[in-house]
Amino acid sequence: MNRNLTMMTDLYELTMMNGYNDVGTENKTAVFDVFFRPAGQISYAIAAGQEQLVDYVKNLRFSEEDVRYLKREAGFSDKFLDYLRNFKFTGTIYAVKEGTIVFPYEPIVVVKAPLSQAQLIEPALLNILCHETLIATKASRVKMSAGDAAVSEFGLRRAQGPDAAVYGARASIIGGCSGTSNVLAGQMFDIPIKGTMAHSWVMSFPSELDAFRKFAEIYPDNALLLVDTYDTLRSGIPNAIKVFDELKAKGHKPVGIRLDSGDLAYLSKKARKMLDAAGYPDATIFATCDLDEYVISSLKEQGAQIDVYGVGTRLITSFNMPSLGGVYKLAEIEENGKPVPKIKISNTHEKITNPGFKTVYRLYDRDGKAAADLIALRSEKFNFKEPLVITHPTMRWKKTVLEGYSARELLEPMFVDGRFVGETPSLKEISEYALSEKNSFWAEHLRNDNPQIYKVDLSDGLYELKEKLIAEAVKN
Amino acid sequence: MNRNLTMMTDLYELTMMNGYNDVGTENKTAVFDVFFRPAGQISYAIAAGQEQLVDYVKNLRFSEEDVRYLKREAGFSDKFLDYLRNFKFTGTIYAVKEGTIVFPYEPIVVVKAPLSQAQLIEPALLNILCHETLIATKASRVKMSAGDAAVSEFGLRRAQGPDAAVYGARASIIGGCSGTSNVLAGQMFDIPIKGTMAHSWVMSFPSELDAFRKFAEIYPDNALLLVDTYDTLRSGIPNAIKVFDELKAKGHKPVGIRLDSGDLAYLSKKARKMLDAAGYPDATIFATCDLDEYVISSLKEQGAQIDVYGVGTRLITSFNMPSLGGVYKLAEIEENGKPVPKIKISNTHEKITNPGFKTVYRLYDRDGKAAADLIALRSEKFNFKEPLVITHPTMRWKKTVLEGYSARELLEPMFVDGRFVGETPSLKEISEYALSEKNSFWAEHLRNDNPQIYKVDLSDGLYELKEKLIAEAVKN
Repeated sequence: MNRNLTMMTDLYELTMMNGYNDVGTENKTAVFDVFFRPAGQISYAIAAGQEQLVDYVKNLRFSEEDVRYLKREAGFSDKFLDYLRNFKFTGTIYAVKEGTIVFPYEPIVVVKAPLSQAQLIEPALLNILCHETLIATKASRVKMSAGDAAVSEFGLRRAQGPDAAVYGARASIIGGCSGTSNVLAGQMFDIPIKGTMAHSWVMSFPSELDAFRKFAEIYPDNALLLVDTYDTLRSGIPNAIKVFDELKAKGHKPVGIRLDSGDLAYLSKKARKMLDAAGYPDATIFATCDLDEYVISSLKEQGAQIDVYGVGTRLITSFNMPSLGGVYKLAEIEENGKPVPKIKISNTHEKITNPGFKTVYRLYDRDGKAAADLIALRSEKFNFKEPLVITHPTMRWKKTVLEGYSARELLEPMFVDGRFVGETPSLKEISEYALSEKNSFWAEHLRNDNPQIYKVDLSDGLYELKEKLIAEAVKN
Repeated sequence: MNRNLTMMTDLYELTMMNGYNDVGTENKTAVFDVFFRPAGQISYAIAAGQEQLVDYVKNLRFSEEDVRYLKREAGFSDKFLDYLRNFKFTGTIYAVKEGTIVFPYEPIVVVKAPLSQAQLIEPALLNILCHETLIATKASRVKMSAGDAAVSEFGLRRAQGPDAAVYGARASIIGGCSGTSNVLAGQMFDIPIKGTMAHSWVMSFPSELDAFRKFAEIYPDNALLLVDTYDTLRSGIPNAIKVFDELKAKGHKPVGIRLDSGDLAYLSKKARKMLDAAGYPDATIFATCDLDEYVISSLKEQGAQIDVYGVGTRLITSFNMPSLGGVYKLAEIEENGKPVPKIKISNTHEKITNPGFKTVYRLYDRDGKAAADLIALRSEKFNFKEPLVITHPTMRWKKTVLEGYSARELLEPMFVDGRFVGETPSLKEISEYALSEKNSFWAEHLRNDNPQIYKVDLSDGLYELKEKLIAEAVKN
């Protein structure tokens, strides 16, 4: 992709940039954190969108047409318009690797950049990162319910516009889907493309049997037949079996059937019996129809016999929680040449931000499983060979002592002084990494319902800084 | 926009097209209807996305790279790959004008095209049209609650990817918003761009007063100050008034304040009193913070003093109903050279499709207000000068007699034999038309809660055809 989204920012960012330019503070170094707060059922997330974020940052530049538009519509100073003409991102960005499991409140991206540059990129950065993270997370939840059954992403027609379909398909793969129906996404990101037939295929033939027969003739080794156009049990499956028999006689192996309506639990069990009795125990039962992690869990509880789930609307829109609500908060700013940590106070303790230039460590127990994350100041030095006491972010009496653990820093440099220094893994590598990430957690922390809350603690240095800044703010 | 989304289709469309090509039925004329079913709170919709649909159709072509990809991944026949190389849309599309108010079950787009062409465009057509229609509708609901207060679209950072932000902003304007924060959307569609300042502006200065003063100095005639960074009532508003006084002394008129947290009903009433007492009865109170049509209605009930609402996440994602769930159903297909109406049967009466090549008339009463819509076969001839009996789509004893009414056909030709024949109104004209559409309805039909159900009836000809096809389907 080589798409210039520089103008995709909120007007107030440019208004403030023009102001900083006027005051002469546009190049003060500022640090912003990207994080999300707990939202609905989302207790963990799979970070995604980094690849698109890199493209966005690399393509940051204003065309003369953009500058003219801003001159006309926003009346900025000539000095600022010249600044925009010469705009180039020269900042540093730290980010967790795409596919990393992350938790509420911890920075998943940290931007350290000249104030105006950091301000400009806020909306697009949040838009890209939060959308893809949301869908990767939803896909992970769906796959969690599906267990060994495969999940395909089928939501193109129900996505919120073309990007939501294409990047949503990409994110679904990171979250654990094994294919997509979206051909463009398949082509762009080398994702396996999947599909069967529509009701319109069946309806465009004089009879269901004709439709199945013709499909099997054209795709003898890929015959996955949609059996619910007329009557699943009395017509669809018997006709499918008839065509399977014809295929078998010619030496081909039928693939299976798709159910797209009705009681999927009942129908899939009936279908399994009918297929088994006809000599097709290996025939796949593919199910689609308003599925999500809850419906799939319920189907499995009922003993549904489904091998592959095609999930559309509820995955591609993250239907019951369509926004991650990520935020971008000022953590530090240069004053008189020195970095000064900043805090945003709120009446709600959880909404008070963590000040300072920070990083995140993941601490693993003796089993190699993630035990806790530690948000710390970059200036703090740790000896991870020694026992470590970590403390709850708000309830300081809740302490955990870690011994024999190992530590990994989650935030890695993506851009340094405007130069891209990150990795460029393929989507396959990213999704393998995401899977290894899931395997590095105790199941209790990632389960869909009422998970055990994973510890995200503050280092002593960060806690003390936060306390001090709160006290100062309250005094004023 | 000149974007080629030809490959943004579901694999099964191409699989079927390859099949039709093999059977030799790819050029049979087929008719597909686009419509939506009632979903959540959505009882009416404002159709949007037609402009993007036109761009999509105009740009339909497969590159050699696309063809090579499909050859490799899907193993289609050489004959079909050649067909794709020469692919051109030659069909006819009827659509309601962008901004038209539409109702569940009635066709808002009808595609009459060679079967394979009609199949290819299904996913992108639904994606584009349903997304923009959904957001235009949500915006209309929000604006309905806001009444005379203006609504600005502020959701860029929370949208599901760049397109959702940009086309969502456009759709919001069609639905009744008066501006957007999204600069790219402003530039692309000539939408007024809006914005104030962020907390980070205030926090980047030594004090709130410094931050306000500097902003007012740079934008003396555009001073809309964000007052909730520290303490709205004890610090924010008093500091804003101080700066307003300084502006007034220099002959400028302060714009107002923005509230972004806390109890907006209470704070806005207090703010209004403080601003009035200080001599600023005209100062605008701008509110943002997780707003939607329900919160705005509640604020108004409580007597909140808010002049402009900035609506983000819940508008741009249509948070409580993030998909319109539009469908694309085969209504007619050529068999032996003759058009044959098709029906899709379901156990749920409402899910049985309306067969045949159809159009939609809107019938207006003597007051010029919309009284009912009539779905009819194109082959039916009406004399709209005579009294008309229209009948409920399922309960045929529910009859309405219309006299002294007028009729308007809603579906207009957009493409005829592949040639674009539609209009190209500006976004401003589209949103004016959408407003006139709203004014052409009785308020009872469009209110947000428990609206009076608007009649969408079937013509006698369509009803009889449907009955006949149901009887035939049930017999088989």
